[in-house]
Amino acid sequence: MIYIKRKEHFSAAHRVWNDSWDTEKNLEIFGKCSNGNYHGHNFELEVTVKGEINPETGFVMNLADLKDILNTHIIDVVDHMNLNLDVDFLKGKNPTTEILAMEFWKILAPIIKEHGAELHCILLAETNKNSIEYYGE
Amino acid sequence: MIYIKRKEHFSAAHRVWNDSWDTEKNLEIFGKCSNGNYHGHNFELEVTVKGEINPETGFVMNLADLKDILNTHIIDVVDHMNLNLDVDFLKGKNPTTEILAMEFWKILAPIIKEHGAELHCILLAETNKNSIEYYGE
Amino acid sequence: MIYIKRKEHFSAAHRVWNDSWDTEKNLEIFGKCSNGNYHGHNFELEVTVKGEINPETGFVMNLADLKDILNTHIIDVVDHMNLNLDVDFLKGKNPTTEILAMEFWKILAPIIKEHGAELHCILLAETNKNSIEYYGE
Amino acid sequence: MIYIKRKEHFSAAHRVWNDSWDTEKNLEIFGKCSNGNYHGHNFELEVTVKGEINPETGFVMNLADLKDILNTHIIDVVDHMNLNLDVDFLKGKNPTTEILAMEFWKILAPIIKEHGAELHCILLAETNKNSIEYYGE
Amino acid sequence: MIYIKRKEHFSAAHRVWNDSWDTEKNLEIFGKCSNGNYHGHNFELEVTVKGEINPETGFVMNLADLKDILNTHIIDVVDHMNLNLDVDFLKGKNPTTEILAMEFWKILAPIIKEHGAELHCILLAETNKNSIEYYGE
Amino acid sequence: MIYIKRKEHFSAAHRVWNDSWDTEKNLEIFGKCSNGNYHGHNFELEVTVKGEINPETGFVMNLADLKDILNTHIIDVVDHMNLNLDVDFLKGKNPTTEILAMEFWKILAPIIKEHGAELHCILLAETNKNSIEYYGE
Repeated sequence: MIYIKRKEHFSAAHRVWNDSWDTEKNLEIFGKCSNGNYHGHNFELEVTVKGEINPETGFVMNLADLKDILNTHIIDVVDHMNLNLDVDFLKGKNPTTEILAMEFWKILAPIIKEHGAELHCILLAETNKNSIEYYGE
Repeated sequence: MIYIKRKEHFSAAHRVWNDSWDTEKNLEIFGKCSNGNYHGHNFELEVTVKGEINPETGFVMNLADLKDILNTHIIDVVDHMNLNLDVDFLKGKNPTTEILAMEFWKILAPIIKEHGAELHCILLAETNKNSIEYYGE
Repeated sequence: MIYIKRKEHFSAAHRVWNDSWDTEKNLEIFGKCSNGNYHGHNFELEVTVKGEINPETGFVMNLADLKDILNTHIIDVVDHMNLNLDVDFLKGKNPTTEILAMEFWKILAPIIKEHGAELHCILLAETNKNSIEYYGE
Repeated sequence: MIYIKRKEHFSAAHRVWNDSWDTEKNLEIFGKCSNGNYHGHNFELEVTVKGEINPETGFVMNLADLKDILNTHIIDVVDHMNLNLDVDFLKGKNPTTEILAMEFWKILAPIIKEHGAELHCILLAETNKNSIEYYGE
Repeated sequence: MIYIKRKEHFSAAHRVWNDSWDTEKNLEIFGKCSNGNYHGHNFELEVTVKGEINPETGFVMNLADLKDILNTHIIDVVDHMNLNLDVDFLKGKNPTTEILAMEFWKILAPIIKEHGAELHCILLAETNKNSIEYYGE
Repeated sequence: MIYIKRKEHFSAAHRVWNDSWDTEKNLEIFGKCSNGNYHGHNFELEVTVKGEINPETGFVMNLADLKDILNTHIIDVVDHMNLNLDVDFLKGKNPTTEILAMEFWKILAPIIKEHGAELHCILLAETNKNSIEYYGE
């Protein structure tokens, strides 16, 4: 079993917000992250995939394919977007880093399975100091 | 003459936008950076100050003071904000990284002069790959 | 289950030293790390906490709370200190990176439990090349 | 149980290549990575070793010893070399990052065992975006 | 006057080699960097361009254009190549980092002039520790 | 004219301290940096040397020689030391980052001149956020 990792970046706006609360409650719980006009980040996404080595290629999965999957299904959809307003698969959701990681998992896991490997971990960093890891369960 | 440097970070939303153009022209010139619902970045600000060494302290200027100046006059004002909508000194301006660096200069140069040193350079990075330097002229 | 991570930094002096050995034996085993007048590092601490997502907040635990816990209970106590001389909870201990990580665990695990989450890992780096991970057992 | 980590670097040339395929098939599967005249990377190797803390030293294993092992058995052998042509233990192998990590494991695991600790993980990064982890099984 | 900076990366093989010397003299002067079978690096290129701000765009030059220029004229030509054998504009040259920076300057300076700005500096790093700056004179 | 840069690291203890002031005055001006038992840092030193390219080598100066000079004359003298107590050329000086940069200049400038090049800049970083540049005048 080998684990391969690929990093990509995207820049997006968001606010942390619970629609069922009023503005005051959102501000109390989420502080400056709930700013009504949004703030933003350079998000760093690192995806880990596991599998057996293919003896012919010496690869678990071609990293060029993994790069293409991440760009087509995630980065092209969220980069330079507003995560509260512009992204179909996040509609109605509170786009915390935790929720983003879990939604990315739902999209990526079946696609990586089709390529003969298994999604192992989604690491999503919002800043150099804050990040999330999700292992699918 | 010694140059001292201090780095700070802020996370903000913005869009690159010329109010005197229509949406189509903005999109043509600024591409995805003109997204109507904004996008965002972790901006990295590095300020360079120059001066003679004070023989009593061994400092040009106490870096703790420089840190306080940057936080009070810049970071606390722009962090977790929308640079098009929420910041008084950017009202009516197109918040490109270039314009941000020049506006930060106008605010910081006189304050640093009051502390007996001279502002030398504003470095502002929007991503790991894109940055701007401004030397005040 | 989601894992959230927060990084903090502190700068401190220490020497690696076994009080029950003489200077020669300390020098033989610990080399330049046993310098009698101390040396120092910028330590980087990354703490991983795990838990279920709270459906109301979209958080395992507010990262702002985790930041406050780390600063109050660890960083404010060790930053700009001598780890052999100035820190109560390290008195009589040999402050290797390993021992530091284990002592930080003892302090942080119960506090994080009170916030409804579970401490998962302490990562402590002494330099860009040397680091330690501790999982509590 | 404590995990200690040590990072080292090496710069080397390689091409990804299956000797049993013709040039066209290699190009089709491996793309630009199969360039006949080779390309190269700054590889970053991070090795994780686990074990119990020795109460006398406060160490699992002296990081200075781990550094020496990595330099003697890996870095001095591969640094500034062509991984397809110059390295005995890679002769006849396709030097993908995956295969490199597995071959490094075979060399390092028994040596680290002799030092009373256990090799836990080999992390090998080819670029800032692409890396491999191997846990020995 | 504003300075804008853009970073790109490429991975390539090379050896430092003076064709008019024999192998022994090359080895004496260039050491392991003269390995006959080549070694390689992840090179990091940062290009600085200076100019006046265009009041309509808030840009000196669109960073998306600078990115395209660097990719078309440099990165696509050298990435995953052997700098001694595969690159027309380096034929017959000794591809030290210094020579690379000077050759990149010759290519980029006139193209950037056509875009109404001026090339200011080429920074080329071979490793995290070794880099070169060239200002065109 | 080409500029070559080399980075090295050292880990050391120090305190910022003016011997002609009492403890109270030191604490008032230097804050936690004046802790009587010292604190410490991983210092990062980047030295820039300028000169003409030697047409035979393609080098201003062999970076391997610059590396040796930095290690012999600076790093081996200050690494794992207490900068207030253990270093001859700093005796009686207040080891601020500014003073360190100026003292390193005095040592390095004549040695680099003997190698046919010219010292251009000393960059010394105390943390990721705080650094000093000195150009010799």
